[in-house]
Amino acid sequence: MRRFLASVLGALAMTTTVHAQEPAPEVAIVIHGGAGTILPEEMSPAREAGFREKLTEALRAGHARLEDGADALDAVVAAILILEDSPLFNAGKGAVFASDGANELDAAIMDGRSLSAGAVSGVRHVANPIELARLVMEHSPHVMLYGEGAEEFALSRGISLVPQSYFFTRHRWEELEKARDEELQQRKSTVPQSGTVGAVALDARGNLAAGTSTGGTTNKRLGRIGDSPIIGAGTYADNASCAVSGTGHGEYFIRSVVAHDIASLMRYQGLTVEEAAEKVVLEKLVERKGEGGVIALDADGNIAMPFNTPGMYRGYIDKAGQLAVKIYADE
Amino acid sequence: MRRFLASVLGALAMTTTVHAQEPAPEVAIVIHGGAGTILPEEMSPAREAGFREKLTEALRAGHARLEDGADALDAVVAAILILEDSPLFNAGKGAVFASDGANELDAAIMDGRSLSAGAVSGVRHVANPIELARLVMEHSPHVMLYGEGAEEFALSRGISLVPQSYFFTRHRWEELEKARDEELQQRKSTVPQSGTVGAVALDARGNLAAGTSTGGTTNKRLGRIGDSPIIGAGTYADNASCAVSGTGHGEYFIRSVVAHDIASLMRYQGLTVEEAAEKVVLEKLVERKGEGGVIALDADGNIAMPFNTPGMYRGYIDKAGQLAVKIYADE
Repeated sequence: MRRFLASVLGALAMTTTVHAQEPAPEVAIVIHGGAGTILPEEMSPAREAGFREKLTEALRAGHARLEDGADALDAVVAAILILEDSPLFNAGKGAVFASDGANELDAAIMDGRSLSAGAVSGVRHVANPIELARLVMEHSPHVMLYGEGAEEFALSRGISLVPQSYFFTRHRWEELEKARDEELQQRKSTVPQSGTVGAVALDARGNLAAGTSTGGTTNKRLGRIGDSPIIGAGTYADNASCAVSGTGHGEYFIRSVVAHDIASLMRYQGLTVEEAAEKVVLEKLVERKGEGGVIALDADGNIAMPFNTPGMYRGYIDKAGQLAVKIYADE
Repeated sequence: MRRFLASVLGALAMTTTVHAQEPAPEVAIVIHGGAGTILPEEMSPAREAGFREKLTEALRAGHARLEDGADALDAVVAAILILEDSPLFNAGKGAVFASDGANELDAAIMDGRSLSAGAVSGVRHVANPIELARLVMEHSPHVMLYGEGAEEFALSRGISLVPQSYFFTRHRWEELEKARDEELQQRKSTVPQSGTVGAVALDARGNLAAGTSTGGTTNKRLGRIGDSPIIGAGTYADNASCAVSGTGHGEYFIRSVVAHDIASLMRYQGLTVEEAAEKVVLEKLVERKGEGGVIALDADGNIAMPFNTPGMYRGYIDKAGQLAVKIYADE
């Protein structure tokens, strides 16, 4: 509210003194497409270009909504929809396979203005779980719905269910076969778990929002709920601190309440968003051997994207309109 | 560890200088049986006595484990098992009915020493979900399992499933009928939601643990996940701050990340456990119209039990061995 008033007053001051055009709205968006063992030597140039292109498309889609004056929530959904619809990421279309050979998807969204939130977990027939999470937030008395109940709610809101075959991709199926094989041989899985997607946005009214969507982990046990749909763990937004979306080894993110811990360090210790996100991801999670990363954005448009893995698909369009898309640690 | 060393050194000093007996271990346990509209005028003396008796029994069971040198986790489980087995509380045997007439139970447990955690949600055939949550913590690669997957895991760990009829109580069935009737008439439900149970404990080695178990809310939608099984929302423990178990309108507890917020206020702002718990329950939750309460315990044995409802079933045995059991606000 203070920010809103300040920007109204600022705009008034400009128009009365210099008759300037209305300044471009101070908006920003940050996205991720998962953290993990992403190495240049294991990536073909074409595949790498595909990732960069899709991340750019998602950023532009979200940013366009913000420039049109839409809510941060709209931008988060617009960006994530594009990543969910791409087979490249472990969310929506490209979701990994659980141990029983099914795809079970999770998503959450949170509004930093009202602290409203919606989350779904274990859905098997919803192409765009982020959309369903938003419907839960806006039209359900509950915050979090699982599986069949979430799909029942989806139907009641006019969402068409898709067959499981919609989520089939050969790449993910081979990952499951490899993970099962490794499990049979009692070896630690080497299947990379990257690919969760997320977005955080700041709209022209100073409101923050965060969203995350995932297929979970390859070969996960039936009914496993990861951090992505858990408010405070993988997803959190509060205008008073920041918006956060996480990606990584979900169990560690749950136990460390990662997203809310970042917000708390800002709110209660006065850390900047960069300091808070780095402290949690590069210190606390590392001590606890929790692999992953986060994207975080504060109400002034400051951006943090720390990760403790070799790579994280990520990008932003900042308040100055500057676009960046990155994959590896040294970018 | 520091506490442990200090108490070992303290014990050594005592034995060498005054040949005193080993001091009684400094242990404590706090429990709740739900917050809500609990009024003396709506309670028969016999029913009230029943609640007080069962709370006392649970406290003594947990405390006895602590005196025997058991882990805080053991005490939490011992206390909650007694409350789950009683038809008086909305957990285990006395669980409320969901909208489809089934009982869907949730529970979580967390170890403040290791930050390990286990949670189950939506289980329909497990008499003691707190026991299953502990097995998830100790024997699953995952932190949180839902429904069928959680029951599959239960079977794999040798837990016998019970039929849904185990959870039938006339009292809870009538609550569902009343809630359905009120919904048909589009009236706000007046069915009290109290009865979630929880425990927090401090063992002789200075370790904290927290656990929560619930049947959720009467007439809840299929697949609804409340705050109890969500680490950071309804359940949290960290030796560095406190152990917390919550009870109330779960959706508000999720959005406010209640348990972790209390821990963060202690850790990052230096508040005492009483100050932190009261700030969250009596200020922040009240502003957001989130009804409920928490029990909280720090590593020095300080206890907080704030609630913003007319009553909360609660009690403790503190470090001095003092036992108290309370129901109404003015006790």
